[in-house]
Amino acid sequence: MKHSFLRINTLSAVLLAMTAQVMAQEPTPPYLDDNQPIEVRVEDALSRMTLKEKIAIIHAQSKFSSPGCPRLGIPELWMSDGPHGVRMEFVWDNWDHADWTNDSCTAYPALTCLAATFNPELAFKYGNAIGQEARYREKDVILGPGVNIYRTPLSGRNFEYMGEDPYLSSRMVAPYVKGMQQNGVAACLKHFALNNQEKDRDKINVEVSDRALYEIYLPAFKAGVQEGGVWTVMGSYNKFRGQYCSHNDLLINQILKKDWGFDGVMMTDWGSAHDTDEAARNGLDLEMGSWTNGLTWGLSSAYDDYYLAQPFLKKIESGELPESLLDEKVRRVLRLTFRTSMNRNRPYGCKLTPEHAEIARKIAEEGIVLLKNENHFFPIEKGRYQKIAVIGENAVKQLSLGGGSSELKPQKEISPLEGMIEKYGKEHILFTLGYASGEPNYSNELPSGLDADSLVQEALKVAREADVVLFFGGLNKNFQQDCEGDDRRSMDLPFGQNELIEKIIQVNPNTGVILISGNAVSMPWLSQIDGLMQSWYLGSQAGTATANIICGEANPSGKLPFSIPVKLEDNSAHYFGAESYPGVNGTQYYKDDILVGYRWHDTKKIDPLFPFGYGLSYTTFQYGKARTDKKTYRADESVKISFTLKNTGDTPGAETVQVYMSQKKPSVLRPVKELKGFKKVFLQAGEEQVVEIEIPVRSFAFYDEQTADWKLENDSYSLHVASSSKAIQATAKIQVKN
Amino acid sequence: MKHSFLRINTLSAVLLAMTAQVMAQEPTPPYLDDNQPIEVRVEDALSRMTLKEKIAIIHAQSKFSSPGCPRLGIPELWMSDGPHGVRMEFVWDNWDHADWTNDSCTAYPALTCLAATFNPELAFKYGNAIGQEARYREKDVILGPGVNIYRTPLSGRNFEYMGEDPYLSSRMVAPYVKGMQQNGVAACLKHFALNNQEKDRDKINVEVSDRALYEIYLPAFKAGVQEGGVWTVMGSYNKFRGQYCSHNDLLINQILKKDWGFDGVMMTDWGSAHDTDEAARNGLDLEMGSWTNGLTWGLSSAYDDYYLAQPFLKKIESGELPESLLDEKVRRVLRLTFRTSMNRNRPYGCKLTPEHAEIARKIAEEGIVLLKNENHFFPIEKGRYQKIAVIGENAVKQLSLGGGSSELKPQKEISPLEGMIEKYGKEHILFTLGYASGEPNYSNELPSGLDADSLVQEALKVAREADVVLFFGGLNKNFQQDCEGDDRRSMDLPFGQNELIEKIIQVNPNTGVILISGNAVSMPWLSQIDGLMQSWYLGSQAGTATANIICGEANPSGKLPFSIPVKLEDNSAHYFGAESYPGVNGTQYYKDDILVGYRWHDTKKIDPLFPFGYGLSYTTFQYGKARTDKKTYRADESVKISFTLKNTGDTPGAETVQVYMSQKKPSVLRPVKELKGFKKVFLQAGEEQVVEIEIPVRSFAFYDEQTADWKLENDSYSLHVASSSKAIQATAKIQVKN
Repeated sequence: MKHSFLRINTLSAVLLAMTAQVMAQEPTPPYLDDNQPIEVRVEDALSRMTLKEKIAIIHAQSKFSSPGCPRLGIPELWMSDGPHGVRMEFVWDNWDHADWTNDSCTAYPALTCLAATFNPELAFKYGNAIGQEARYREKDVILGPGVNIYRTPLSGRNFEYMGEDPYLSSRMVAPYVKGMQQNGVAACLKHFALNNQEKDRDKINVEVSDRALYEIYLPAFKAGVQEGGVWTVMGSYNKFRGQYCSHNDLLINQILKKDWGFDGVMMTDWGSAHDTDEAARNGLDLEMGSWTNGLTWGLSSAYDDYYLAQPFLKKIESGELPESLLDEKVRRVLRLTFRTSMNRNRPYGCKLTPEHAEIARKIAEEGIVLLKNENHFFPIEKGRYQKIAVIGENAVKQLSLGGGSSELKPQKEISPLEGMIEKYGKEHILFTLGYASGEPNYSNELPSGLDADSLVQEALKVAREADVVLFFGGLNKNFQQDCEGDDRRSMDLPFGQNELIEKIIQVNPNTGVILISGNAVSMPWLSQIDGLMQSWYLGSQAGTATANIICGEANPSGKLPFSIPVKLEDNSAHYFGAESYPGVNGTQYYKDDILVGYRWHDTKKIDPLFPFGYGLSYTTFQYGKARTDKKTYRADESVKISFTLKNTGDTPGAETVQVYMSQKKPSVLRPVKELKGFKKVFLQAGEEQVVEIEIPVRSFAFYDEQTADWKLENDSYSLHVASSSKAIQATAKIQVKN
Repeated sequence: MKHSFLRINTLSAVLLAMTAQVMAQEPTPPYLDDNQPIEVRVEDALSRMTLKEKIAIIHAQSKFSSPGCPRLGIPELWMSDGPHGVRMEFVWDNWDHADWTNDSCTAYPALTCLAATFNPELAFKYGNAIGQEARYREKDVILGPGVNIYRTPLSGRNFEYMGEDPYLSSRMVAPYVKGMQQNGVAACLKHFALNNQEKDRDKINVEVSDRALYEIYLPAFKAGVQEGGVWTVMGSYNKFRGQYCSHNDLLINQILKKDWGFDGVMMTDWGSAHDTDEAARNGLDLEMGSWTNGLTWGLSSAYDDYYLAQPFLKKIESGELPESLLDEKVRRVLRLTFRTSMNRNRPYGCKLTPEHAEIARKIAEEGIVLLKNENHFFPIEKGRYQKIAVIGENAVKQLSLGGGSSELKPQKEISPLEGMIEKYGKEHILFTLGYASGEPNYSNELPSGLDADSLVQEALKVAREADVVLFFGGLNKNFQQDCEGDDRRSMDLPFGQNELIEKIIQVNPNTGVILISGNAVSMPWLSQIDGLMQSWYLGSQAGTATANIICGEANPSGKLPFSIPVKLEDNSAHYFGAESYPGVNGTQYYKDDILVGYRWHDTKKIDPLFPFGYGLSYTTFQYGKARTDKKTYRADESVKISFTLKNTGDTPGAETVQVYMSQKKPSVLRPVKELKGFKKVFLQAGEEQVVEIEIPVRSFAFYDEQTADWKLENDSYSLHVASSSKAIQATAKIQVKN
């Protein structure tokens, strides 16, 4: 008999030990140990994953998520559009809105507006605010900001970008990224690269010189990577030199990852991958998309046909592609995961706070550009007029809707009309539509029940009755307006606005125009009006900001982030015809090369209607002489240029002073001027300050295609202190001598 | 002139300071400070919330979520059914599945099976495994376990509960809760209380004595609260003493919160609140529901009509109800939030791991109950028969689907047929349906294209051909079977199974039956068969576990967690007619009082078909004499009862030894026996052990309605060591003397 009291005690001990083992912390594997360096955790997690788990983690499982590794407890990654706020929720596998009610957001002004503020601090706050809202909504990646260059005023997506100048967009993108990512939410620089038009974006092949690539189209991406430290980059739909950008060896392997040292995730735009071998070899790390193979039930099988899914797996299993290519992608996705969803220390985020509204309003106010202001048209102080006519659909249209992926569901969007009524009182405001467009994203047909003629007649009636008319027009987020997926068909205002404005001016010459758009429009009526503002898609606080500017409680300080040409042909992209824009037989040649925007207008001596960097204030500024701290500089030094700036008016205001560089005798063609520094300076009425701006001498270099490197020539350089790209206020000359 | 170089430096300093302020950590408010005690954080957060924010946080915003406080960055709470695994995802506002593909899970055996294991360690692993899967899926609250008492075999939801005995379910619930909650995922004890039938559950008023309430229906809840430390409790749909249980003053305010010290969230079942004043005053903290007011867009307005939404807000604003009632609810919701979604240290969870499958299989194997085994019917060793007929729909039906809220979308669910084929080889298995039912949850009509007679004929043909027949039948998750929302209509097997079984036995007497259900069924054919197993809804590993038991690779060790009566009228709830079950005119009287389950059968001397605690093994056990460590005890002492247990067969196996208490001369009616201890003991073939079980003397007390307290009488008590409630193997007598 094996009777033993000891034995039962042993069994009890075993049972207790088992319980203890379950209850107690088992030794934490390195990938789950927050105290380990990220790279250690990455390698440890990678080493534990099966081939299939590694394949799964590098492509979509749904519209806006990629799987983690459930077995190892590595979380999924959730993404959301977009640059202007956190988009509403979608159903799993298609583009139907999920109709949640917890997905409203603060809508921030479009990035064109942010660029127009010339205020990097606001860019930080902008990114940080969206990051907070994204974090609260459990998003790990926000699909923005967009930093493609504004090359043509027709591009449907310019409103999501930061203008025509690589230096300006570089200064704005870095703090945006930093602000966002300190929430443990990744920013995603897009669309890498050369997505400078929406027309034929899914197939157009872009041919551009190395020099234009490095000097114009890449700097903002580089700043986002190297200064912003961005964690993800999104490939564009188009091709570059015959290869799709989302798996383009030169752009991704050579430039982004090797030259710039990007250690994050290179992901597709939704459906921008086209080839497994290229995707595998050319640095694409994560494939997202809009398409599935139609399967709607099962283990993510709807995404099995993705280029980085089963096709990649098969090529690895057959030995056609090495697993090391996969491992490198997985490392990057894991690194992103540890930075975001597995970062225990990230803050909890928040949403729809008063601070968020305040940031949105502040950016909107600082971004609105006063373009024309004769005879003291603006500001329209309270009490100045009895009857203010507000005419135009954009005074009431919900402009956060539409436009494509940047659409938002703002908790509230105060329209310009609401802002005006709040400011001036209902009894002083007369409103009528004047014109009307269709639903956002879709047709531009007049909504049923509305008759264009009646709208015009009603508008003229209202205009006659009013003491002053404010016309709120411009573009909107409809298809082929400011909307992704295609370009505008012309630079003209749509929906009969030009004719309407002309007619209104006839019956009431005291008319001002507020253009709301993300693109330049032609203005045939410009000479007939005294007041003109370029406004933007301003988001939640649109009406408040607009009314504050109009009534003078806020003083305009925005500057144009792009040139407004007189006519389309004056724009660099259009000057060379269809080969340059929109392309012929599937290819376009950027014949304007480095001469984009004001570089073009300056160098070709084609006057714009309004130049880059232009914007008026309700006060005036006087610039003193410009001095530099030295006369001769070496490449590794910085020029400190200083000058006095005085607010010579009787109202406080801010001026964005700009510093442009001109090289005297370059060995290659250089633009007449290039922006190299700016500073936004706030001055009380009558106040004078010495403004100092520091500019690294190395930034004067051009990209030398012969040596495939930046080249800084010993030469004489002029530094122009200016209030716009056309308005030089002072100049200092220096020598560079190495 | 106010020219000053100093001035500009000051401005720069201010700008720098602003940036620094944004970039740097602002002082962390206490509610966001992980180093602060939870209670400090709760009070701090509460003090910052507006009245509307406080109202918002105590009711649903969607089918399975409640809002946080977006402004303060307090996250939402996400909930999921249910007790047996983490349910699939739903759309926002209705019961449509969201058709995600990341929401498959491990399906664990139903809680009846867990109870049948009599193994608290497995309960811990069960809760922990679901907690891990829930955490991985970002769920904060799992709506389980269910611990209502199995009172009648008709109750549609018994399969989600842990049987008829309050002591057994108490021992199982506490480790389940602990296992789950160590993942930072709250368990939710349900349905509090007296939801012992599904028929008329939304309106039935339960009248029950205090004694039955405390002795039978509440102990498992109390154990979940006091031993498990559960963070949430769900109210039931029914009424108790005229007041709905979800806002029942006695149950919630007096017992749960005051007497038991529950500091968590008392929430409704979905739509179980009915009155704002009662909800406000009687301890309901969080109102969830299945209904909306139909609004589908906007700021959670679809839930504005909830009793704890606008109606409560208005009563506070009008002064009719004090805000302090609201504050107490908010405190509890915040406390839950800090324990779950704002617990930075909770693990990341994981999903579908090999360990999860292993736990599911182990519980299934330990839960299957061998009820009859004559002539060595089981195990069916490999090679014993050439042709094994597997007949019956339950051999193939996906039993994780249906049944109501406990439905699951398992990544895989190995059916008994698949398990049998895997075990014995395809060539040895003949399968036919035999009978068929309809879709889960809905009708019980035969699927189109199937003809009952043909199914029977085919089954008989197959039975004739086979060397042995295994009939897999029982109930399923169809409506009015094992499914929430209504009860079964009788104790009989549905879908013509009794007739079918009789016919099969006629053509092949070598037939065994495997019943899969969560309830007892009548067995008119019992005497004609040699082999019978009670199996359960076993989840993902159903087939593997079943085949392991059938072939003898695993030795059955499950014990019945409920009595199986010969006929329905032998059950305590049905003995007294409609007044006792299902109730008359909206009220039912629990006339069986404390005599539920084996307490009834024992005391009334009505033999069950199979008693509570019963279950055979492939081996046999011999019990030695029982001894206690003393003869006389005081109330605060524990009895240590010990005895030898020997595996007298030739195969290893586990026996669940049970200890029942009988009081000799109680001053009130007491059941003949009450379970007071058990231990599952594994023994090798031939092995003998001394088993010791420790039982607190205080547990011998009964609830005295005169003093409204537990009463332990000085008396002689028998402690019966037993292999089931009917099979006493040894007895020891002790005296209690205080």
